[in-house]
Amino acid sequence: MERPSLHVIKIGGKLINDTDELQRFIDAVSQEEGKKIIVHGGGRKATELSALLSIPVKMIDGRRITNHETLEVAIMVYAGLINKQMIARFQSQNVNAIGMCGADGNVIQAHKRPVDEIDYGYVGDVDDVNSDILASLLQADLLPVLCAITHDNNGQLLNTNADTIAAQIAIAMSDTYNVQLKYCFEFAGVLYDVSAPEVTISEIKHAELLELQHTGVINKGMLPKLSNGFDAIEGGVQDVSICGIDNLFSGENATTLK
Amino acid sequence: MERPSLHVIKIGGKLINDTDELQRFIDAVSQEEGKKIIVHGGGRKATELSALLSIPVKMIDGRRITNHETLEVAIMVYAGLINKQMIARFQSQNVNAIGMCGADGNVIQAHKRPVDEIDYGYVGDVDDVNSDILASLLQADLLPVLCAITHDNNGQLLNTNADTIAAQIAIAMSDTYNVQLKYCFEFAGVLYDVSAPEVTISEIKHAELLELQHTGVINKGMLPKLSNGFDAIEGGVQDVSICGIDNLFSGENATTLK
Repeated sequence: MERPSLHVIKIGGKLINDTDELQRFIDAVSQEEGKKIIVHGGGRKATELSALLSIPVKMIDGRRITNHETLEVAIMVYAGLINKQMIARFQSQNVNAIGMCGADGNVIQAHKRPVDEIDYGYVGDVDDVNSDILASLLQADLLPVLCAITHDNNGQLLNTNADTIAAQIAIAMSDTYNVQLKYCFEFAGVLYDVSAPEVTISEIKHAELLELQHTGVINKGMLPKLSNGFDAIEGGVQDVSICGIDNLFSGENATTLK
Repeated sequence: MERPSLHVIKIGGKLINDTDELQRFIDAVSQEEGKKIIVHGGGRKATELSALLSIPVKMIDGRRITNHETLEVAIMVYAGLINKQMIARFQSQNVNAIGMCGADGNVIQAHKRPVDEIDYGYVGDVDDVNSDILASLLQADLLPVLCAITHDNNGQLLNTNADTIAAQIAIAMSDTYNVQLKYCFEFAGVLYDVSAPEVTISEIKHAELLELQHTGVINKGMLPKLSNGFDAIEGGVQDVSICGIDNLFSGENATTLK
C-alpha cells in the first residue's frame, strides 16, 4: 500500500503578525486537499503583552530567558489567542481544525533545558512526539494546529522553539507518511540578497550551510529553520523546503534542503 | 446493548482560583474510572489580567459586557492559561486530557447574543454541540477539557457561560450515553444557610425553584447552575446534581435536581 502524503507546515511569526497575510495562509491551506499539520510561532503579540504588563525582557548572550511571568504570557498568547483565533478562522472556511499545545493529548513531551552555563528558564527540548494521536486526528479529518508550548509530564508547561517542533513532528510522522516539511515565511525561499527578494536559492546542501553562514548569505533568523530542516532530513523526512504563502504547495522558487 | 455512562463535570471559578483545591479536583477525576468530560469556568485570573491591562470592567444592569479587549483576555486566560495548566496537571497523573475551546473540532457553535435592550458584546448563546467529535475523543480514551469560549463559524470567538456549555454538552451526549451532569463547586451541595455549610438540600424540584429564590435560600450565583441544570433534565439528561470535590463521585450530601 502506498504511504499517504502529509504536509507539516510551520508558519512564522511575521506572517502571524499581519492579519491579511495570516488570512492568505489560512485560505491557501484550506483550499489544498490532503492531510496537513500546522505549527505556528509566536509573533509580536507576546512581546506587546509583556510590555503592557511591565514584564522585563531578560536576555543572556542574546538569548531570551523564559521566567515564570514570560511563560504565562507565552501560554496565554500562543495556546490561547493566536491558536484559537486561527482555529476559528479555519472553521469559517469549513476546515475542521483542532488547536493543541504539546500537553493536549500528550502530543509533545519535552524536558526543561538543563542548566549548563545559561539557565534558559522554562524552555523545553523535545523528547517525544505522540504520532499515534496525530495520526488518529488526521484520520478523523481534523487539521491539528500546534502552538510552541510543550509539557514535561510532571505538570510543567514549557516554551519550545516552533521550528524544532515542526521538524520533530515531521520526523515522527515519517514512519507512516510521506512527509513534506515546509517552513513558510515572508519570502518565496531563502534569498541571496534581501534587496532582490525575487531571487531565491533553489537548493541548499547541508555541507554548504557553514559557507553560506560565513559569507553572510544566511542570517540569524534563517539559521534555526535550516538547522532544524537538516535534522528532519537526517531523521528520514522525504522533502524539506523553505517557502512563502504563494508557493506553499506549488513549491515554485522555494528553497529545497538536500 | 447497555448505554455507557458519562460524567459531564463543570468546575467552578472559586475552585480554579485555589491551587490546592484545583489539584484535589484533578486527583479526584484522575482516580475515577469511566468516561468524563470537564468544563471549566474562568476564575479570578481574567479579572486580574484586565485590571493589570487597565481594561475597564463595563457593566450594564449588573451584567458584564464583553468588548473586544475583554474577549481577548478571556481567550488568553480560559483557553490559554487555565486550560493548558489543567491539561498539564492531568497529564502528570497519566490522564490523557485534551483541552478545547468551542472552535476546536467545531465542538460548540454559538451565535452572538442578539442586541435587544442590552448589547452584551462578544457573548455567545449555544446553537450546536458536536457530539460526534466528543464521542470519538472519548473512544480514543481522551479526557476532553472544555473552556467557556465558543465560535460562530464565521471566524468570531465568543465568551459563553460555562454552566450553559456543560448543560448543552450533557444534553447532546444523552443520545448515546447515560449522562450524569455535575456542577462541582466549593460546598457539598446547595445549602439552606451558608453559616451551616454541612447541611445541604438533598433534592430540588423545578417547581420549588421560584419559592427557594423568593425566600432567599438560593442566591444569584447558584441560579444559573440550577436553571441550566433543569434545562439539562428537560433535555433528557438522566442525573443532574450540585456537589463538591469530596462527594464528586459518591454523591453523598449532594443536591439532586428533579
